[in-house]
Amino acid sequence: MSDACDHVETLRVRYSDTDAQGIVHHSNYFRWLEEARIGWLEAIGQPYGRLTERGIFLPLTTCSCAFQTPVYAGERVDVHLNLDEVTRARVGLTYEIRRGEQVAATAASAHAYVDATGRPLRLQRDDPFWLALQEA
Amino acid sequence: MSDACDHVETLRVRYSDTDAQGIVHHSNYFRWLEEARIGWLEAIGQPYGRLTERGIFLPLTTCSCAFQTPVYAGERVDVHLNLDEVTRARVGLTYEIRRGEQVAATAASAHAYVDATGRPLRLQRDDPFWLALQEA
Amino acid sequence: MSDACDHVETLRVRYSDTDAQGIVHHSNYFRWLEEARIGWLEAIGQPYGRLTERGIFLPLTTCSCAFQTPVYAGERVDVHLNLDEVTRARVGLTYEIRRGEQVAATAASAHAYVDATGRPLRLQRDDPFWLALQEA
Amino acid sequence: MSDACDHVETLRVRYSDTDAQGIVHHSNYFRWLEEARIGWLEAIGQPYGRLTERGIFLPLTTCSCAFQTPVYAGERVDVHLNLDEVTRARVGLTYEIRRGEQVAATAASAHAYVDATGRPLRLQRDDPFWLALQEA
Repeated sequence: MSDACDHVETLRVRYSDTDAQGIVHHSNYFRWLEEARIGWLEAIGQPYGRLTERGIFLPLTTCSCAFQTPVYAGERVDVHLNLDEVTRARVGLTYEIRRGEQVAATAASAHAYVDATGRPLRLQRDDPFWLALQEA
Repeated sequence: MSDACDHVETLRVRYSDTDAQGIVHHSNYFRWLEEARIGWLEAIGQPYGRLTERGIFLPLTTCSCAFQTPVYAGERVDVHLNLDEVTRARVGLTYEIRRGEQVAATAASAHAYVDATGRPLRLQRDDPFWLALQEA
Repeated sequence: MSDACDHVETLRVRYSDTDAQGIVHHSNYFRWLEEARIGWLEAIGQPYGRLTERGIFLPLTTCSCAFQTPVYAGERVDVHLNLDEVTRARVGLTYEIRRGEQVAATAASAHAYVDATGRPLRLQRDDPFWLALQEA
Repeated sequence: MSDACDHVETLRVRYSDTDAQGIVHHSNYFRWLEEARIGWLEAIGQPYGRLTERGIFLPLTTCSCAFQTPVYAGERVDVHLNLDEVTRARVGLTYEIRRGEQVAATAASAHAYVDATGRPLRLQRDDPFWLALQEA
């Protein structure tokens, strides 16, 4: 567990994130990862809303999560996001979801760049998103 | 509890519909009502996808629900939908959510007709949706 | 729209709160109201987790919402909560959901006090929750 | 894409499963996988509710999904579930999510057996769940 990471997003666990087991439903971890991505894009000056206005969408091609300790309603979690690999056609991210000092889960997601119709895109070398990704 | 109603939609309660209390989270009842509306629109020959293609959207203006008995994961519920009142500008619906013979909740929703930009619409007298609503 | 209220809870709208209409799904407003209640209970020194440990649960008996303007992903909303009426058997709350200065929705919820088995409770006159509610 | 599989669960996509992109939110695929598991457990005579009454819980240790084609509100999907590997301490499942003949996504999940307090369990050789898993 390294403390250097590209972005940290702090989220409050909603009561409605839980299920009848009394803990957060696993599907909701992926909603937190998305919030971390959105926060990260904003932090690198490329808010998702502006990207989609420019016709750049980032749908998931794959995602995965390994669950270590449960998370409960009312807690706060820190999602540590790392840019894993990036090309002009796709980007891969990894995540740690932490409750305080404890790693509750690790996760990864891969995203293709597509246009509004879902067609794959290749970012231009001078595209501001591509430039921001390289700096990140 | 009357058995005549305009549409019955049978739904399976998803495990992910529950919360840490062990019962279905109240917000999800509104998702079931929506499924009942979608089933009803299809049953009257006006599937929601076709309405929106024609530029007719039915956002909620109000909704309410009274909860009587809890509902559990894995159960099946029958949503009984009734057309309450309808004009060329709006439509009101009422619902009973039943588990078998038991009424678990009663609910209501009101909807305006709006275009894709959210502007209020008044249905033409020969609009197929208006004609279908009057027959319903 | 009055600015005096018993509690304000600021929430970030999650991307996963939206639906295919491009706006927040109406069911998720009820999840925000719940977060406001949880924040309010904490603020009056009666966190919900502690209440449930003491065998006091606050299930909804009714809820309603009137929607005025849509809310979009990434926005922040302020839920203004007001204690409407309170007895030793039940509590009623009202809410305004605001985007900046604009009221996006108004809402209400009523809650019974029940024990872990769902049986109605009557709060004792010296119950710390009852005392806190009277001060609120 | 093989047609032999251990269980097929047919699900209707809810409108509230979608997000502002107009397609089903990726997190909801994991809710469908869960429904397929619950249907499969019922089909092998080991409904999840009965397992948890006996103190056997099946939390996820890992899950993953690869997304191929988007899924839209109102569609029906068939989740094809396969028992991948099973021991007396854990079980692994794989899934295909199909829209008609098309594979929309493939997925996997791994589950540990734990008791109500989250402690790992080892199934007894004569445990009805273990016997049912071996026949499956």
